[in-house]
Amino acid sequence: MNKCVFCKIIKKEISSDIIYKDKNFFAFLDINPVNYGHALLVPKTHYKNLYALPDEVLSEIALLIKKMAVAIKKGVKADGINIGMNNDGAAGQIVPHVHFHIIPRFIDDGFRHWRGKPYANKEEAVKIAEKIRTSF
Amino acid sequence: MNKCVFCKIIKKEISSDIIYKDKNFFAFLDINPVNYGHALLVPKTHYKNLYALPDEVLSEIALLIKKMAVAIKKGVKADGINIGMNNDGAAGQIVPHVHFHIIPRFIDDGFRHWRGKPYANKEEAVKIAEKIRTSF
Repeated sequence: MNKCVFCKIIKKEISSDIIYKDKNFFAFLDINPVNYGHALLVPKTHYKNLYALPDEVLSEIALLIKKMAVAIKKGVKADGINIGMNNDGAAGQIVPHVHFHIIPRFIDDGFRHWRGKPYANKEEAVKIAEKIRTSF
Repeated sequence: MNKCVFCKIIKKEISSDIIYKDKNFFAFLDINPVNYGHALLVPKTHYKNLYALPDEVLSEIALLIKKMAVAIKKGVKADGINIGMNNDGAAGQIVPHVHFHIIPRFIDDGFRHWRGKPYANKEEAVKIAEKIRTSF
């Protein structure tokens, strides 16, 4: 039994405010939007996260993200668009069905950006970069 | 004269902690990371934002985002990965050279998520969805 809430939304067992659908993808309004018009774009097939998304699906959904960003910007007369994606619980992924957030932004909407923490020193950054380079 | 700071980083006129490069793309550590290992992935060609990114470049960079997410997760032993992208000043885009944030996350890293604001009522959501659907 598939208990995934996004699979249920896609199958319309749970209602949503749909903004886009085609053969392979589905997009609807986030019920807890950062700003009105904040949408979620998902593949109809259930994949857990970015790491599990096949290349051909990813390349296709990327083009849709752009299309959707343009439509949302126009639709709600936004001044900008954030794209966001959370992978794993530690990153804030609540529903384990891969989804992209497309978020309209407005000048002075009061939305605070993440605060950074600069590297303690140059050596720290060099070390981290090396760890990542050797992980490809 | 090209004064773009990311173009200068790509041309190595400004130094950076490089984590990946190939013929068309370049990735380096964000100097003000949310967590250590926070990287920026950019196309070497200067495009302003997502809306300006040609489809073929977007499809290709999407695959690299996945590859980079896996490498960063492994490289810094992260528990999760956020992907982020800011388009236009209102969305927090500071450098007008399209870039993707790939951010390692750790359980209990204290990073607060954006607070949502639920739709005032169902009619409001229906109206917003309609505005977006008709904007494609």
